[in-house]
Order: sequence, then C-alpha cells, then structure tokens
Amino acid sequence: MRIGVLCSGGDSPGMNAAIRGAVLRGVEVHGFEMVGFMDGWRGFHEGDFVELDRLAVRGISPLGGVMLGTSRVPPFPDGKATPEALRAVAARMAELGIDAFMLIGGNGTQTVAELLTRAGIRAIGLPKTIDNDLAGTDYTFGFDTAVSIAAEAIDRLRTTGESHRRCMVLEVMGRDAGWIALNAGIAGGAQVTLIPEFPESIEQICDWVLSVRDRGRSSLVVVAEGFAFDGADQVVVREGLDGFGRPRLGGIAEVLAPLIEQRTGIEARATVLGHVQRGGSPTAFDRVLATRTGIAGANAAQEGAWGTLAGLRGDRIEMVPLSEIAGELKTVPADRYEEVRLTFG
Amino acid sequence: MRIGVLCSGGDSPGMNAAIRGAVLRGVEVHGFEMVGFMDGWRGFHEGDFVELDRLAVRGISPLGGVMLGTSRVPPFPDGKATPEALRAVAARMAELGIDAFMLIGGNGTQTVAELLTRAGIRAIGLPKTIDNDLAGTDYTFGFDTAVSIAAEAIDRLRTTGESHRRCMVLEVMGRDAGWIALNAGIAGGAQVTLIPEFPESIEQICDWVLSVRDRGRSSLVVVAEGFAFDGADQVVVREGLDGFGRPRLGGIAEVLAPLIEQRTGIEARATVLGHVQRGGSPTAFDRVLATRTGIAGANAAQEGAWGTLAGLRGDRIEMVPLSEIAGELKTVPADRYEEVRLTFG
Amino acid sequence: MRIGVLCSGGDSPGMNAAIRGAVLRGVEVHGFEMVGFMDGWRGFHEGDFVELDRLAVRGISPLGGVMLGTSRVPPFPDGKATPEALRAVAARMAELGIDAFMLIGGNGTQTVAELLTRAGIRAIGLPKTIDNDLAGTDYTFGFDTAVSIAAEAIDRLRTTGESHRRCMVLEVMGRDAGWIALNAGIAGGAQVTLIPEFPESIEQICDWVLSVRDRGRSSLVVVAEGFAFDGADQVVVREGLDGFGRPRLGGIAEVLAPLIEQRTGIEARATVLGHVQRGGSPTAFDRVLATRTGIAGANAAQEGAWGTLAGLRGDRIEMVPLSEIAGELKTVPADRYEEVRLTFG
Amino acid sequence: MRIGVLCSGGDSPGMNAAIRGAVLRGVEVHGFEMVGFMDGWRGFHEGDFVELDRLAVRGISPLGGVMLGTSRVPPFPDGKATPEALRAVAARMAELGIDAFMLIGGNGTQTVAELLTRAGIRAIGLPKTIDNDLAGTDYTFGFDTAVSIAAEAIDRLRTTGESHRRCMVLEVMGRDAGWIALNAGIAGGAQVTLIPEFPESIEQICDWVLSVRDRGRSSLVVVAEGFAFDGADQVVVREGLDGFGRPRLGGIAEVLAPLIEQRTGIEARATVLGHVQRGGSPTAFDRVLATRTGIAGANAAQEGAWGTLAGLRGDRIEMVPLSEIAGELKTVPADRYEEVRLTFG
Repeated sequence: MRIGVLCSGGDSPGMNAAIRGAVLRGVEVHGFEMVGFMDGWRGFHEGDFVELDRLAVRGISPLGGVMLGTSRVPPFPDGKATPEALRAVAARMAELGIDAFMLIGGNGTQTVAELLTRAGIRAIGLPKTIDNDLAGTDYTFGFDTAVSIAAEAIDRLRTTGESHRRCMVLEVMGRDAGWIALNAGIAGGAQVTLIPEFPESIEQICDWVLSVRDRGRSSLVVVAEGFAFDGADQVVVREGLDGFGRPRLGGIAEVLAPLIEQRTGIEARATVLGHVQRGGSPTAFDRVLATRTGIAGANAAQEGAWGTLAGLRGDRIEMVPLSEIAGELKTVPADRYEEVRLTFG
Repeated sequence: MRIGVLCSGGDSPGMNAAIRGAVLRGVEVHGFEMVGFMDGWRGFHEGDFVELDRLAVRGISPLGGVMLGTSRVPPFPDGKATPEALRAVAARMAELGIDAFMLIGGNGTQTVAELLTRAGIRAIGLPKTIDNDLAGTDYTFGFDTAVSIAAEAIDRLRTTGESHRRCMVLEVMGRDAGWIALNAGIAGGAQVTLIPEFPESIEQICDWVLSVRDRGRSSLVVVAEGFAFDGADQVVVREGLDGFGRPRLGGIAEVLAPLIEQRTGIEARATVLGHVQRGGSPTAFDRVLATRTGIAGANAAQEGAWGTLAGLRGDRIEMVPLSEIAGELKTVPADRYEEVRLTFG
Repeated sequence: MRIGVLCSGGDSPGMNAAIRGAVLRGVEVHGFEMVGFMDGWRGFHEGDFVELDRLAVRGISPLGGVMLGTSRVPPFPDGKATPEALRAVAARMAELGIDAFMLIGGNGTQTVAELLTRAGIRAIGLPKTIDNDLAGTDYTFGFDTAVSIAAEAIDRLRTTGESHRRCMVLEVMGRDAGWIALNAGIAGGAQVTLIPEFPESIEQICDWVLSVRDRGRSSLVVVAEGFAFDGADQVVVREGLDGFGRPRLGGIAEVLAPLIEQRTGIEARATVLGHVQRGGSPTAFDRVLATRTGIAGANAAQEGAWGTLAGLRGDRIEMVPLSEIAGELKTVPADRYEEVRLTFG
Repeated sequence: MRIGVLCSGGDSPGMNAAIRGAVLRGVEVHGFEMVGFMDGWRGFHEGDFVELDRLAVRGISPLGGVMLGTSRVPPFPDGKATPEALRAVAARMAELGIDAFMLIGGNGTQTVAELLTRAGIRAIGLPKTIDNDLAGTDYTFGFDTAVSIAAEAIDRLRTTGESHRRCMVLEVMGRDAGWIALNAGIAGGAQVTLIPEFPESIEQICDWVLSVRDRGRSSLVVVAEGFAFDGADQVVVREGLDGFGRPRLGGIAEVLAPLIEQRTGIEARATVLGHVQRGGSPTAFDRVLATRTGIAGANAAQEGAWGTLAGLRGDRIEMVPLSEIAGELKTVPADRYEEVRLTFG
C-alpha cells in the first residue's frame, strides 16, 4: 500500500503532528509506503513529492505551518469534478504508484475527498481548519491554537484598554462561522462578541459598550471578520462602504471602532489580528488531536475504511463517513450564542 | 435562592472562570444570591464567606489559583457521612441561609455532592481536577493547562537532552490515572510514556531507550508519579526502596533515571515537575470549559436539576446525574495506551 | 515627605512593577507617604488620587497596563510651560500636600520633569516607553516586552509564510525610532528590516525579497510604522497616498505588501501588530528593570537627588540628570542598522 | 581563514543564534570558511565536524539547545594546559586545517580561550551561560531565558500557594552565583531570596515567612541551589545532612521547606526547577544578544582581534581582552542583594 498525503487550503497548527502520527503508525506499524505531495494538489499534478518515513517526520510536532507546504491549487483542471477529471486523478495516481490519499484539509478538501470516494478512489480525511466549521468532529485541529492566540490578544488589549479607558475592538478570523470569536471571547472575558451567524445592530452594540462604561469598566469587543450589522446598516457595510458611507478601508473592526467612538463618545481602537492566528507552534491540545487523527487515519487505511474522516467525538476518535459530513458547514448554534450574549452582555 | 459556592481539594486552573461564569449567570440572569465559602469546607464550618456578585468576579478568569481558596478540610467532623453529620450540614445551611451548594471539585468532592443529594440537600457539581480522572465528562477543567505545562517542559527538556545526548526523564502528576503523562507525552513527542494503569518492566523501558539511541536520538521519558514497575521490581519500589534497594529518596523519576543510566550506559537526568503543573493562568480551553460549566451549573440550579454535574460531552455541556458518576475513577483505557506504546515506542 | 506618582503617555508593560518598587522602598523603607494620581495629569488637576501603600501594590508586578491609568492630558492648561503654568502646578501641589513628583513616562514626560525641575519643583523620572527612544538609559521598560511580542509574531508569521510560499510583512510600532523593528527582526530572523532612520527604495526591498526566494525561502519583512521609502516614493507615501497613488488606507505594511507583490510576483500579506504590542504581562526583564528603577527613584528621593532619571547603565541603575537627556530622541545609529542590513539582507 | 566553532559546558538558550550570527557574518560577509565541531572538544579530538554555511544555520535562532551539541570533554588530555598539551592542540588544528577558534562557553571555556591565546593560538570567545557569572559582559546569553522560566514558575507557584495558604519554596540553578534567583525573585515578587553569596540563618528566613503570613499573604521563597545557611546550620547542610541531621536527600529546597514548616507551622512545599531552566526557545533578548555576539565575534576575527570576548556593555557589544576576565567569577554584589533584602523582606 502506497499512500499519498496532501494538505490543501490554509495552513493550520497541528498539520505536522497529524503527518507524523500517520507516518509513525502507517509506515512503522502497518508497513505502508507513504509520500507527501508538496504544496497540495500542485505537487500531485507535477509529481513533486517526498518520501515520508520516521526520519522525515522527526521532531516536527511542535513546529507551526506544515513541512509539505499547502496551497489552494484545485485537484481538477477547472475546479469541476467531471467524470473525465476524476478519471484523470485516478490515472495520475496509477502513474505515480499511489493507492490511496490521506487528505488533510477543511470543508473544501473533505468535499473533494467525498467526490473521490464516490468515484472509487480511496481517500481518508483528517479534519484541519482553524475555523472549526467542519461537521463530523467536535473540534478540528488548529482551532484551539487560534483561540489561544486570540484570547492572549484579548488579555493584552484589555490591559491597555483599561489603562487608557478605551473600548478595544479585536477582529479575529471567521468568515462564515464565529467559533474563534465565541471561544476567545469567553476565554478573554469580552463583553461583546459579534459573529457572522447572528447580526446585531450598531445601537445594540453601543448599548452594551455604554453599560460596561456605566459599571466603571472599559469594554472589549471581539468581532469575527464575517460579522455584519443587523438591519439597514448591514447593506451599507456589505457593499464595501464603511459605517459613514465612505469606501470601506479594512476589516470589520476598522468599521466598527469609529462607529462606536462616534456614537458613544468613548475612544475606540481597532486591532485586526490577521495571519498570526494561523501560525506558530500548536497548543498541546492541537498536537494531541492532530496526532491522534493521523494515527486513526493510518489505522483506517489498514482496515480499508475508505471514504471516512477521523473525527473527535468526546474523548475518542471515530471514523465518520465523508458522505455524512461533506458540504455541511458547522456554525455556532443559537443556544451557544445566547449563552454568551445573555451572560456577558 | 441563595447558593453557596465552595472549592475543595487541590487547586486547578479554571476555578476562577467557573465561579465567574456561575455568578454572572446566577446572579445577573437568574437573580440568585450567591456566596463563596473561603478555603472550602473550613469556610462553611466557620461561617467565613464573601458575597459573590459581578464586581467580586471581575477580571478573575485569567488568574490562576482560586479567589476563594481551597483546602482538604472535610465536610463531616470525622470524615464520615453519618446521618447526624448530614443533618448537621443541613442545620448549618439553615443557620447561614444557604439553600443549595455549588461544589467545585474532583472525585472526592463529587462523591460528597452525591451524599448530600441523597440526604435531600441541594447540590450541583462542577468538574475540577488537573488529573482528568472524573467520570461523566470528556475533560475536567485544569487538565488542559496541566498538559500544556507538562508538554512545554518536554519541549524544553528535549533540546537540552539532544544537546548533551542524554536521556531525560520527566515526572508529572497522576497518582492513579496517567492522563497528564499520556497527553503531554503525545504532545511533546516522548518516546516512552509510563502510567499507573500499565506497568512496564525496567528491561522493556531500557530496550526503548536503547532503540531510540540506535536511531541516533536522545530519548525523552515521561512518567506519571503513580507508575510502578512490572514484575519483581514493582515490589521493591512500592516498599519505599529505590531500584538499588536503598531507601527511596524522591519521586519515581529519581528512581528511574539512575536505573536507566546504570543499565544502558546512557547519561540520564530526572526532573520532577511538581506544583508548577497546577498553577498559573489557565489555557483558553480551560477558561472556556470552566466558564461554560459555571453557566450550566447556574442554569441547572434555576431549573432545579439538583444532584447533577456539569459535564462536557463532545462540544456540549450536559448535566449528568451524580449518582451515575460518583466514586468512579476514569483511568486510561488499554486502547489509548496501546496507541501510544505501539506508535512511539 | 509626600510623593505623587503619575503616569503619562501611552501605557507600557512594567509600569505596575515600577510603582510597586517605588512604594515598597519609599513607604516601607524610607517612610514616605505616597499617592498615585489617576489617569496622569487629569488626576492631578482634578485631585483624583489613591494612597499607595504595601497593600495597594500587592501582586501587581505581573499585570499589564497600569493600576493608576494613564492619559495624554497635559500638565499645563494650553500645553505651554509658562511661568504662570509652572506656578500653578506648584500651587496645586501645595493644595494637595504633595512635596515631590515621581513621573513615569517617555520623552514628553521627562521633558516636563526637567521643566518642573528648572522651576524648583522636585521631580524624579522613571523611563517608560515601549519605543526605547529615551536617552540616558540603555533600555526603557516596556521595550523588551514589545520586542518579545513582535518576535513571537514573526515566529508565527514565518511558519504560515513558508507553508504558503508567501512574503509576510509585519508592521510594528516605532514612529520615529526603529528599535522594536530592529531587535524583533534580529530575534525573529527577518530578512528585511525597515526603520524610520534609514529609508530604502522599493527596488532595494524587492531585490532582497527576490534573493531570498532564489535561496528557496519565503521572506519576512519587518517594518516600523514610521518607515518611509527612499527617493521619490517617499513623498508619495508621506502625503497620504499609497504606492499606487491612491488614498492611503492603512499602515505602511499595507502599502508595502501590494507593492512587493506587484513588482516581484510573489504573493505578499500584511499584518499590523498594533495595540497588542503594548499590553499584557511584562517580561521578566521588564519587571526587573521597572522594579529597580522604582527602587532607585525612591532612594534618589531619600537622598534629595531631584531632577534625575533612573537609567540603566550596563547592569546598574544610575540617576542621570534630566538636563542631560530631556528632549533628546535616541534613534538607531548607523552601525546598528548596517549590522542587520549587511548580515541578513 | 578557516574558523572552528565549538560549544563547551552546559547548553544555554541562544547558542544557535550565536552560531547563526557568526556564520552569516563570517561566511557571507567576510568570506571565511567555518566548521562546527560536534559535542565540544570531543568533535575536535575526533575530527567530527560539519561545514557551517548559510543553509546549515537556516531557521535555527528560535531553537533551544545547540545544533552542534555540547559536552564537558576537556580540551587537554588530563585537563592540564601543559606546553605539550597546547602544542598538541596547535598540531591538531594544523591537521584539520583550522586557523582559529570561536569558543562558545562560560567561565571554564573562556579560561581555556585565554590559555590558548597565551600559547599563540587564535581564539575568540562568546559569552554563554545561564548563570550570568562571567565577567566582561553585562549579561551572558541564556541568562534571560533562564530567568524568564524561573519567573514564570514563581507566577505559577504563587497562585497555588495563595489558594492553599502555603509557603512555596522554589529552587533554581546557581551553584556559585545567585543571579537567576535574584532576578527571578524580583520579577516574580518573591518575598524571600536566598543566594550563595549571602548566607542567612533559618531563624531569619522563618521570621520573613511569618511576617508575610501576618500581612495575610502566603510567602514565596526562591533559593539558588548553592545557598547555605548562616551559622551552625551551614555545616550540617554542607556535610550532606538535612536540617534534621538525616542524610540529605535532594536539593536545598527540599531541606528548607520542611524546616520552615516545622518552625513556623505553615505548610511548605518544595519545587526543584531543574533542567527545564536551560532548555527551550530563547527569549527575544537572548536571541538578539547571542546573534550580536556572533556577528561581533566574526568581525573581530576579520580584524584580527584575537584573545577577546564579545561582551555586552550597555547597549553595545565590545571586544574585551580575555586576559582581563578569565578566571574571574562575577557574583551578586552586596548592594544588589541588599536592594532585594530590604525592599521585599
């Protein structure tokens, strides 16, 4: 058995640990051959890969990023999984002597894994995304690290905010799902948490900021990049204008802070956390989760459990059929948002 | 409703966040009165408590330790839950005007919570212990922080070990359950993980260390304090002697390192991590988990769901009947240990 | 002797440690009375202050921000140190029963301290600024923490940059002096470091980025917010236009990244670190430096060494006459920049 | 010019950054050839070395330990620098084609560097030791990292100490000099700091612990491994007995904690920090210092300034004659200890 490992989409802390787990189990215990394609599907298309053995994965668990590189190059020529495109993948696999894929990625990648599976190509998925918006697993690896970094930023912003009596607005990642903002907000004690799933009006936001001020404190607002205002304001911001009808310059935090300042009279400052959220050494939690999904993926290959994703369920890793989860975006449910909204608002 | 919050047993990162979550929800949303007993049952016996309101819990989430203090003072005079002792607790509650308890603790504390429940006393449990050995919850708060600190220690020891070609032995907490060693070992890439649940012989351990050396590396051994050798050696160490039959001086790491050095000829050094594992600012994961159990506990009190523990099940908090989990020690199952043993050994 | 402690300007990690050092020494050893004005000169003008004693400073060293608050409210009504304004300060001191000031701040604050001194008002300065641009001291407290945070951000960005083969551009603080960029760049291994003191052309920058690519690596560019291009480009950017002649949207990093991408064809991404650089728990270095300057300041008050700043000289704290350093901006000298430019470029 | 780089003695965070700085400057700017001997003098004796070029030092700055390994193997056969032994070193250099040494080490190593210099062998020293006990430099690299780790341990122990009302005793490294304890104690707010240079009696120590208790707090005692009691107690402990006259089991912390508990009635707990102090990723401060000494060392080689050490003086690196500093142990001066003793006691 010769398995091709491939990372696709944005990088996420834990990818190296996942590869190491899969290789130590797959090569050393099950006797597979394993190769790693460089820069995702680019390496597959161009035949650019490295052999993966114990030495290749030595000491990589604590390292951020991913040793193989990753990219958004699509698996299919024009991005469409036509029968021809799928046959081309199978033919290329045969050329390269690859029997199966281990695909490390998020929603897009796991949807590809499911398409390959339906076409009879052997594939196993490992759940990687800092956004945690993948169904079939309690958590994806990379998420805990991203939350930790965001919570640390909140801790830092809070002290400078309190010292200057300012409202600090922190923008974190999360285009479609607000998981990072939700958990970092709880961990850091944000008074206002704004996520894509639940629009709020600028009036409500300012009410919260003012009530925090009335309690003698400075407020900390955490906002996911995909958040949009409720009501009429939503249109304005969505169309590329800021809250004052001018061309929108930066992220949502840079829209929100001046609006808050204008309406409340409280000095407000925006910080966009950006790419630091996805880099650096993974937390212990992510290293453990990633390693275990790698091991479970190798075991599933040994058992022929193709078309599955290594998901965390409670404290166990279970192989979940890709058909059950592909294409499903896991967003923050209403009760989780209400928990935060009512408790800290 | 007036609820008494009380922390018992060893401190665990996240206790402050749990109290804050419970108070913000209980006092601000549900309108409870809440008080916190100082130093666990001592404060209850002596009537030493503070009022808990929004101001009292302000900014405490990121702080280690616990604002109320904790102790191992027992709830019952001679440690026995006799009918008299239970009636005395109820009488004392009446004197203090307390309607219910929120008990933050591990196995011992939750067993007390169940005993109180059976005696008709209202109690809700929050799952705190760095050891993660409590049933009814995927994780206890404090555990993730302890694992993170232990994994960081492994990262540090590994670099000095490799530089000096030494075998480094790290002892972590875990008298009865090896969860910290297991997860820190995976996260830090330990080649040998030794836990109370699964004895190994000194011969096997030295074989692992030698095979790591033969691969050109220095080995990292993580051992839980409760680990004991397999076979004849077990008796010796258990009786307070070290591996050479001399009076045993320190922890198991200090027994193990010289034995490894003597048998393999590889220089070995022991580090006992000790109390730093339970201190310091909680990880984001623990803050979120603790805050959510606090909120859930307050909600359960509102709903009258007495006799339950706020457990993490997947990504949801569920109230688990104390009767189902009291007295049950959650240890590392064989498949989890085999996963590590086979993959990294 | 009754001393008023006052923080002015931006907050900087270590301010709490400085206050604690000054109070433990001044109150407990020398028997002073000490008070802390809230929010800098605002508290002085409005008589808003707290008594500072051992209890007031308990446990504050590890905390970010500053317990007294800080602001940019000026000491003199219209910002001018006229004889009337100086007399007004002295009169207000008499009203409040204050005999002397301990002024925690950077260049602006220490210039005020010198003006007060010349007017016969007792003042001692403690050197606080994350920018490290104050003369008379090897380092200011807050600087080491800011560098650590920036270096950590570089470590994180590097891993994601390498994984995606991108050029990552990090903007750090430093309007007039490039110390943070210089040291964070060395610590993080940035290939390109751009600081206000030494303009570089966009051609030179792109040459560096391309030569890094030619060596098979992804480049990391650290740029201080006050950096400006050499030559004609400088004018454009300074006038509020970006590198393409459009209205400038954000920081210099957001100008630089698209220019690099356009000219080199290498994907480039900007991150503006922002306010997180000044928040959070100080490093051990900053806590030690700040505590020692506080102690030295209290000792100087005891000895009547007014009109001095507690500066670090090698490993000793020395009281430096404010007259020698007030108004002097300490910038990065040419040999320090050349050291970095030649070695890493 | 072909320079042999060699690390000797215990490892210290920053060694990799020093090598990288020296190589990027020496090879890329000055055109030297450079090689690195493996495991200190062992590699020299056995001709075990690697070529050092840009690729060899890529990305190593943030890594703990040292890529070359280090050991305590002596340069001279029986440890004595006889004329024969020195001639043998010169002869071996000729065999290996080495023109000069760059020696990365502490007191012992720099004394060797001075002996080589006197014998006409070209050598330059870089000041590495976590103990900071080397003359000729304000700080040695590795020290700031060790202090940071120790201060972090104090932060952690303090929270658990306060929660349980315990006296926590932390033992840090420092056999002959108390720098780590001194600075970590200031940074962490230890109430009692005990160092080898200044004995204290157990009565004095217990008085401090009791006065802290009387102020309503739990005390934190930081003690350097080389501390000894004042007066009669000193003899007992020095002779390998503990405070109760029994055979001494572990470090000084394990002697001190039970003595404090017995005499004050306050529960006391010992933690021996051990090897974690010397491992792990260096702080930004140490990376900068180490890199700069490496660059300065390469420049000194280019200028022929042999027999010198790259020392930090204020914010500049200066080449200090080895003859001025070899054999001189830099210990904590009385005024630094008094500063701490009076202020925090």
